Amino acid sequence: MKSYREELWFDVPTRRAFIHITPHVQECLEKSGIREGLILINAMHITASVFINDNEPGLHQDYDAWLEDLAPHEPISRYRHNLTGEDNGDAHLKRQVMGREVVVAVTDGRMDFGPWERIFYGEFDGRRKKRVLVKIVGE
Amino acid sequence: MKSYREELWFDVPTRRAFIHITPHVQECLEKSGIREGLILINAMHITASVFINDNEPGLHQDYDAWLEDLAPHEPISRYRHNLTGEDNGDAHLKRQVMGREVVVAVTDGRMDFGPWERIFYGEFDGRRKKRVLVKIVGE
Amino acid sequence: MKSYREELWFDVPTRRAFIHITPHVQECLEKSGIREGLILINAMHITASVFINDNEPGLHQDYDAWLEDLAPHEPISRYRHNLTGEDNGDAHLKRQVMGREVVVAVTDGRMDFGPWERIFYGEFDGRRKKRVLVKIVGE
Repeated sequence: MKSYREELWFDVPTRRAFIHITPHVQECLEKSGIREGLILINAMHITASVFINDNEPGLHQDYDAWLEDLAPHEPISRYRHNLTGEDNGDAHLKRQVMGREVVVAVTDGRMDFGPWERIFYGEFDGRRKKRVLVKIVGE
Repeated sequence: MKSYREELWFDVPTRRAFIHITPHVQECLEKSGIREGLILINAMHITASVFINDNEPGLHQDYDAWLEDLAPHEPISRYRHNLTGEDNGDAHLKRQVMGREVVVAVTDGRMDFGPWERIFYGEFDGRRKKRVLVKIVGE
Repeated sequence: MKSYREELWFDVPTRRAFIHITPHVQECLEKSGIREGLILINAMHITASVFINDNEPGLHQDYDAWLEDLAPHEPISRYRHNLTGEDNGDAHLKRQVMGREVVVAVTDGRMDFGPWERIFYGEFDGRRKKRVLVKIVGE
């Protein structure tokens, strides 16, 4: 069994954003030399997500508006978590809707994807350095 | 390490449906000959889900009504994604609530399940051919 | 390839609760002797979740209130599932928001976590014995 590990770092200038990371994960896979196995891609922070969906800006605006509706950022006092001095209570909820991680199959050295599957980093509390783990296991 | 790959194809006649796929995954596991490891089962399309829950039709109606409440199909103009000419903006949101994939442990050649765990394909934009990936890794 | 399996049992005295299980998973990892690979941690019941987020009681109260808002327990008659004689329709919905499982990377014999990542069992229909599967695969 072979394994490979790499961290992808982000410093998003806004509170919220969606960033396309498929090419970065593809690079990790090539460096790993693994041709059969599984890739785990997970946010290493608890106010961010990794998810798979469409690379379409309108959809990302829909996600943003929908998540704000499900778990509004304001008023800050809405969340008990913010009594700790944080203002990111909403981000911990949004991340649960979008998920922490994805697992992708590796077949013949490639990510085994349907036609429109693309991997995204979902930032819900940005303006600081945060990272994603790529772990590949196989042979 | 052994690996096995199979696609399950669906052509759901309605826009939305839940389809029980545990027996199909079980067949894949038997064909694989793998006795210890992990199974990844994921929708290969971004308007569909694979999830684990109860095989109970009333619950599936509850899911359908609840998802329509969280992310209504209409009005189509509600979603920026639909400005691309699509009418499936809601399906991309519903899929995030229900999830893209599940990972199931394989122990002694069997899916290592609790008493009521069953695997479902959740279709949110049907009436065309779509597929699920089953990837088994282990030995 | 090595594999290790253990069940964690819970008997939560209330209907809903969040329980910190990182130390239990850590113990499983040590017993396994596995130094590179993946850990799957999943609820074996369909009215419970395993998820990764912050070990902060205020946040857990936020989750509880938010999930009650998204999928209220009462009135029981709200859910078709409850026509079967159950009263846990809401728990099947709450579990989908919080997720069934997490997959964690193992690197150098340790869970490969960001600074605040902790694993929780989310109970949405307690007052009986239920369990979580820990399956570790690697070498």
